[in-house]
Amino acid sequence: MDTKRIRRVKEAMQSEGLDALVCRLPENVLTLSGYWPLVGWSFLLFPRDGEPTCIIPHTEEQEAREELWGGECVSFLFGVLGAGNPYEDIARALKAASAGKGWRRVGYEGSFECIAPPWNAAETAIPANITRGVLCEVFGEALIDATDLLTSQHACKTAAEADKLRIVNEISNFGLRTFSEMVAAGVTGVELVAAVEHAIMTQGTGYKGAKRVRSFAQVATGPAETLIGFRPMEISTLRKIEPGDLALLELGVVADGFWSDRTRVRVAGKPTPQQTAVLEVVKAAQAAAIKKVRAGVTAGEVDEAARAVIRDAGYEKEFVHVTGHGVGLRYHEPIPIICPGSDLVLEPGMVHSVEPGIYIPEMGGIRLEDDVLVTQTGAEVLGAFGGDLA
Amino acid sequence: MDTKRIRRVKEAMQSEGLDALVCRLPENVLTLSGYWPLVGWSFLLFPRDGEPTCIIPHTEEQEAREELWGGECVSFLFGVLGAGNPYEDIARALKAASAGKGWRRVGYEGSFECIAPPWNAAETAIPANITRGVLCEVFGEALIDATDLLTSQHACKTAAEADKLRIVNEISNFGLRTFSEMVAAGVTGVELVAAVEHAIMTQGTGYKGAKRVRSFAQVATGPAETLIGFRPMEISTLRKIEPGDLALLELGVVADGFWSDRTRVRVAGKPTPQQTAVLEVVKAAQAAAIKKVRAGVTAGEVDEAARAVIRDAGYEKEFVHVTGHGVGLRYHEPIPIICPGSDLVLEPGMVHSVEPGIYIPEMGGIRLEDDVLVTQTGAEVLGAFGGDLA
Repeated sequence: MDTKRIRRVKEAMQSEGLDALVCRLPENVLTLSGYWPLVGWSFLLFPRDGEPTCIIPHTEEQEAREELWGGECVSFLFGVLGAGNPYEDIARALKAASAGKGWRRVGYEGSFECIAPPWNAAETAIPANITRGVLCEVFGEALIDATDLLTSQHACKTAAEADKLRIVNEISNFGLRTFSEMVAAGVTGVELVAAVEHAIMTQGTGYKGAKRVRSFAQVATGPAETLIGFRPMEISTLRKIEPGDLALLELGVVADGFWSDRTRVRVAGKPTPQQTAVLEVVKAAQAAAIKKVRAGVTAGEVDEAARAVIRDAGYEKEFVHVTGHGVGLRYHEPIPIICPGSDLVLEPGMVHSVEPGIYIPEMGGIRLEDDVLVTQTGAEVLGAFGGDLA
Repeated sequence: MDTKRIRRVKEAMQSEGLDALVCRLPENVLTLSGYWPLVGWSFLLFPRDGEPTCIIPHTEEQEAREELWGGECVSFLFGVLGAGNPYEDIARALKAASAGKGWRRVGYEGSFECIAPPWNAAETAIPANITRGVLCEVFGEALIDATDLLTSQHACKTAAEADKLRIVNEISNFGLRTFSEMVAAGVTGVELVAAVEHAIMTQGTGYKGAKRVRSFAQVATGPAETLIGFRPMEISTLRKIEPGDLALLELGVVADGFWSDRTRVRVAGKPTPQQTAVLEVVKAAQAAAIKKVRAGVTAGEVDEAARAVIRDAGYEKEFVHVTGHGVGLRYHEPIPIICPGSDLVLEPGMVHSVEPGIYIPEMGGIRLEDDVLVTQTGAEVLGAFGGDLA
């Protein structure tokens, strides 16, 4: 059990006067119970005093019982003949677990609007009006929106969570290495994506005990595609790489519910002097930002460390985005955002990306992205892996 | 433009007295506008009278303009320096597009609780309390939950949508073929998943014009894993297939927002008489159900056609799940469910899976799954591909 996580959440519940939390989103069930839901039909009732109750489809009972740190585990028939309305089963279990408690304030995930998928990423189940109706029926006027509490709780990772983030970042290296080896004239972005995801699935599953691993790779190639390679999604295409082209890999990986976010660029063949020069600026900007990271520093200072290097090199207008964002329990988390002027103070345990990039018409885009853990004395780069162009 | 879809939705809006719909979920934006959002930050305002307005991140303006059937397209800065609060930008655009219309009833997606991911499947954006707050601010008391209308609209696919579902099912065959060729002693479920997804990405992208293709494969191997191979998610493992083992592939594929759901089984080596016998029963059950499918028949009758074959063969208790479910705009759709006793009448344009399965301790599970389009005269099997054991 991650006792530090549990203690911290309970302290936050205390200070907000919350008697219990009820969570459905995989990212919240995971951090509060140790169990990463396979589909989105697991609910966790997490009281401030006493043991949690996990309400799950019977089809994932074995995995849940293996992973749950403790508490009660109640299953309901799901996806087979004889299964009833899952909401009725869930309501019944919630009522049974909360009966006689006299809770006055119960928090739920009412305002999460960006979420991570469960293991079955093809279909996400979410708490919308139906879930709210069920929870209102069970908890009445005690029900309140605890999205801010849960989000702020995720800002700082515990030591156990940091360990998981080291693992997923090391797994992502299998993809970075495959990309690095495969970029060449004639290869397409689609082929690179397929190879990177194949490498992560086959080499990452089982790595340091990782059980459920999946990746989401995106590769832009050539000037036009990499010029907009800062988009939150790129479209990998059938365009064949031409000699001298840049290829840019944006890579999200999840291992047992913990996420990494990395970016690398490569050139097919020998880099031009301009490509080399720009990469050196980006590398120096990333290094300067990482060097600045430390508990007590502001996010704005870290952004400025990267931006100053790029500004001094004459590319200020070509660095169009922020220097970083939170990451770990989702692909992108809102705390911290490493952006100009932010006075948010970094705290130990925060994990964020450091991803300066320069995007130049005709040449294309060059970005390097790694995830760092904020410590009292500096930054730990998770899963360090070289970022050379060729 | 899919004029049939547009006409049908407007008729439903008319009969429910809805002046407009405002949608954020990719599946709804797609069917109402032709554009499959790249991330989940696109909103579509779809009035009953007049042209729709699509409000999108500037980072996907090019794709949206290429794919949108018509109407206005308003972009807001997203993910770059200078971008504001997206909700404020979206509210402003919604107000501008609805000003002076005097709408009394505006529907939104308040109760969708199972959803398909956008192209960037690593992160889904959803309409929760924040979106509801924005829409309430814009539309006031006119805002109502239109989830039922949207869900029922998706039950019957138009001819244009059926064409897209033929394509995605044909693309899924690349995965089925790879699986079929690769199952052998010594291979793991994880290796099969990686190979299947690789095949679909590389061979499916560009197939009949498909631009954005992704798959979610799951492979269970051996008796213990395939025995529970009816779960809505399996966990593919590092277990090496032993001679004579069954391997079961569950495969979800999406191509430009349209989904397929298929299952195949194979044996490593020569099937045993029991495996062969059970497969023949499953095949016969699937064929009987498909033969029964036709507009005007009830879902219960189709289920019974499959179930009777399995019952007569003595495996009634081993066929633990329903015969099928809707599919197409999601991996799983709630209309129709092909289950015992259902008096839901099949209509032309419905698309559903037909997936009888038999799960026997010691042997494991055998299921065949294909997607069919309901027509006036029968069923069209989408992307037919052989289902032999070896």
